[in-house]
Amino acid sequence: LAWTIDDLDTPCVTIDLDAVERNMARAQDYCRRNSLALRPHIKTHKIPEFARRQIELGAVGITCQKLGEAEVMADAGIDDILITYNIVGRRKLERLAALARRARLTLVFDSREAAEGVSSALSAANLSAGAMVECDTGAGRCGVQSPAEAAALAAEISALRGLGFRGLMTYAPKGKTKEPSAWLAEAVLACERKGLPVEIVSTGGTVDLYRAREVASATEHRPGTYIYSDRYMVAHGVGTLDDCAIRIVTTVVSRPTAGRAILDAGSKTLSSDPMGLEGHGQVLEYPKATLPAMSEEHGHLDVAACNARPAIGERVTIIPNHACAVSNLHDVVYGVRGNRVERAFAVAARGKVQ
Amino acid sequence: LAWTIDDLDTPCVTIDLDAVERNMARAQDYCRRNSLALRPHIKTHKIPEFARRQIELGAVGITCQKLGEAEVMADAGIDDILITYNIVGRRKLERLAALARRARLTLVFDSREAAEGVSSALSAANLSAGAMVECDTGAGRCGVQSPAEAAALAAEISALRGLGFRGLMTYAPKGKTKEPSAWLAEAVLACERKGLPVEIVSTGGTVDLYRAREVASATEHRPGTYIYSDRYMVAHGVGTLDDCAIRIVTTVVSRPTAGRAILDAGSKTLSSDPMGLEGHGQVLEYPKATLPAMSEEHGHLDVAACNARPAIGERVTIIPNHACAVSNLHDVVYGVRGNRVERAFAVAARGKVQ
Repeated sequence: LAWTIDDLDTPCVTIDLDAVERNMARAQDYCRRNSLALRPHIKTHKIPEFARRQIELGAVGITCQKLGEAEVMADAGIDDILITYNIVGRRKLERLAALARRARLTLVFDSREAAEGVSSALSAANLSAGAMVECDTGAGRCGVQSPAEAAALAAEISALRGLGFRGLMTYAPKGKTKEPSAWLAEAVLACERKGLPVEIVSTGGTVDLYRAREVASATEHRPGTYIYSDRYMVAHGVGTLDDCAIRIVTTVVSRPTAGRAILDAGSKTLSSDPMGLEGHGQVLEYPKATLPAMSEEHGHLDVAACNARPAIGERVTIIPNHACAVSNLHDVVYGVRGNRVERAFAVAARGKVQ
Repeated sequence: LAWTIDDLDTPCVTIDLDAVERNMARAQDYCRRNSLALRPHIKTHKIPEFARRQIELGAVGITCQKLGEAEVMADAGIDDILITYNIVGRRKLERLAALARRARLTLVFDSREAAEGVSSALSAANLSAGAMVECDTGAGRCGVQSPAEAAALAAEISALRGLGFRGLMTYAPKGKTKEPSAWLAEAVLACERKGLPVEIVSTGGTVDLYRAREVASATEHRPGTYIYSDRYMVAHGVGTLDDCAIRIVTTVVSRPTAGRAILDAGSKTLSSDPMGLEGHGQVLEYPKATLPAMSEEHGHLDVAACNARPAIGERVTIIPNHACAVSNLHDVVYGVRGNRVERAFAVAARGKVQ
């Protein structure tokens, strides 16, 4: 392994380990002071070592979106896993039963069909898992559509073998949704009226992390991006560019015009996730440069507004718009402190779409 | 390995091998009839077996964008490789020299700096490679800005040890650029006036594949997507949905409302490349369904316009907007004929951003 960032070939992803530690500590501290369980979503880093560190610092367990991510994390010894995804289909149910033998699982459902499938698979093997009802409090993705439906599905789940009803889960990023507080309070009440105690009310997202307490019924929060942060979070007032632990080191490979510099990092490196931001990243060395366009292997840097401009062969560092999408594109990232490369991390849960 | 597509877990990528053969034959036939060399860009499939088959059918060699892709292809025995990328930086030059020992390379440059770096690295090892000048005929990415600059750089390259000037290369997709024909003709003339014969004029892109002959000076075309095709190509009049060999098999995991079905394939599976199309893919089983939104692991299918609507657990098949981006997201794809799964292919050159 190389010793400094300058020794790494480009494009590559570096993770500032000091920033990671600060970001983890800050989130854990907020949750502790506000009596919220922290259950990080590992989709941002996809790296078992970071998941273990999150738990070491006080997280109650982790969140995975896909079964394949949970399998990788269980392989690494993580034994309390929330899978916030409807598990559907014969092959997945077989894998779920195998996973339930070695990890304490909590699952979410927004339909009787999905819950029944899991119930059959687990109970046939004398296994069980916790179960929560996914609530669409406004994001318009999965989830039951009303507090009454939430309570009705909770009752159905409670009657199924192999599943123990534990509570309610939502993903309701601010800006996209109305306040989920009233929705969830009503759902809790509706469940309790049916004699179903709600142990967990789980909310998510880093944008809302430091106001998670504003949802009165919340007992748990599931942020993902906070560990690395990214340009989207900075744009939404969560931390500063200094808090962004994830960076892309690139090289200028072409200077076709006075105002244009072409980088060796395009959408295969930075992702093309449309995050509603101007440009595809923030260039640290040239704050006035913009990244208005990309192709798969090229970043099209506009340096017309810069006094000094980068030369061919020069390295420039980019804060990406979307950390999670970047992690998914790279087999390896480099843990650094300052300019020193401390170690390489395999992104073990990368690409686990199943 | 499973025996039919229904046995594969979802989401997964299938490649119709009969369609692949038809697509390869059609392109090879066009090029043969029009006296154009076909030099496929492997970025679409990233699979050595397909590269070998392209050569078997008459391709003169392959095109790679990144050195890492070329290394994978050389490992698989492909020995004539055009790398359409400015190779810059010490580590890459070391790797390039190693690669030049085992494959016949042609490289492109749009600056004296990049050409000098490669010249030093190759000549120091008593190696050599072909060299072409990259021409910006309107796409606004890399490339020299005028025919006169092209000839000037060609002359500089011709004077460098370890490099043999071979011609001109451009990527000028129609719609994005003006007609490159006049630009290239002028550049050829300018080179010849300097006593530099232009052996190759290389154009690219599947959108322009079947009108490649319209560029009078072209001797070679470098299409990528034609082997798989995708929804973007169909939208641009290159073939039909039946020609799309690449498909994503997904499962409906949630039906939160009457008009909404949630698929287990999101941007991690389909990519979020903005191809200027409405929606993120075409659903084969429900032609009136649209895919207006995605998150990383969910596709948000709008089925309001459909008479019959998919149930939870049902599989639906998607033609993706951008085949190349999908290939880059998956470690494995499945070669199928009809519903039969013939074999799995490792996407060996996936993620090679360096």
